[in-house]
Amino acid sequence: MKRSLGARTLLFPTPVLMVGTYDAAGRPNLMNAAWGGICSSEPPCVGVSVRKARYTYENIVQRKAFTIGIPGERNVVEADYVGIVSGRTTDKFAATGLTPVRSELVDAPYAAEFPVVLECRLFQTIEIGVHTQFIGEIIDVKGDAELFDDDGLLDIMKIRPLLYDTSHRGYHGVGRLVAQAFSVGKSISS
Amino acid sequence: MKRSLGARTLLFPTPVLMVGTYDAAGRPNLMNAAWGGICSSEPPCVGVSVRKARYTYENIVQRKAFTIGIPGERNVVEADYVGIVSGRTTDKFAATGLTPVRSELVDAPYAAEFPVVLECRLFQTIEIGVHTQFIGEIIDVKGDAELFDDDGLLDIMKIRPLLYDTSHRGYHGVGRLVAQAFSVGKSISS
Repeated sequence: MKRSLGARTLLFPTPVLMVGTYDAAGRPNLMNAAWGGICSSEPPCVGVSVRKARYTYENIVQRKAFTIGIPGERNVVEADYVGIVSGRTTDKFAATGLTPVRSELVDAPYAAEFPVVLECRLFQTIEIGVHTQFIGEIIDVKGDAELFDDDGLLDIMKIRPLLYDTSHRGYHGVGRLVAQAFSVGKSISS
Repeated sequence: MKRSLGARTLLFPTPVLMVGTYDAAGRPNLMNAAWGGICSSEPPCVGVSVRKARYTYENIVQRKAFTIGIPGERNVVEADYVGIVSGRTTDKFAATGLTPVRSELVDAPYAAEFPVVLECRLFQTIEIGVHTQFIGEIIDVKGDAELFDDDGLLDIMKIRPLLYDTSHRGYHGVGRLVAQAFSVGKSISS
């Protein structure tokens, strides 16, 4: 029997995205966002929703670029801090000790310490309720060399990304492989 | 040192979303989508990207509604099957044995066996590259009664939702609680 929770932003799981931008003075900033995800395969695009009041909002509008850093479990303290304070009053890189790296592809920075980064050029800007959804075309994905398997692909169990539980506001790790996609379902005959 | 992977749709993690719709004949269907996420807090909205060739595309356009079911680990075989076959040729509910439930709030069905469901009314339709992003206003979230904690909130460790690894195309479970959000970061002083 299902119980109703009402009209709420509950989804399981949501990601933990570190949105990297430059402000008007060229200072690097990070925002912690759970409202986002891949939204197109060609061109490859990722969307992230930002309120107009956020410091990051004007940065993306002006620079037309952002990065999405994927923090690992070992970055959880810094990632949470990024979501607590504002770049308007705090240099989050200085406070956390994270190292800002200038992207060579887009006009935005990322933190060297996060295991994976997506470098994005602003592709579309969409108003949805109180949020603005910035759609970024993914120009490149970069991952730390030691996170790759012999097949040349990133290993999610080496990245150990965080995911956000919108119900109890917790950061969780990724669990075991349950099954291979496009495979386990073949046991059902049409 | 970071290694480049090129322009690819890699994000860690992505969700496993079961998009429930009715077709023109009133037959219930499910689609497996990883390209989606929450995109507005007020009104509460979830976005899911669908190619025009998918059977689900016309269903959402016509019915202006869909559900998002969150499958648990125990539903992984059915969830994967949903992503392998098309509703054009196969009755996925009949083939999997999943039970279609007609939403009382929106013109769309969901599978009774999935632990959590979001009932959505089509709010916006956005073209992004080869995908169409359907933005659904979340009218209600429902969860199985046994998945709630004493605080009245859904427990992610009882739901045991799946997440999709875009790199090695695997379904993973949710791991342990790493830290509490809006809390662990306070150990850093601004």
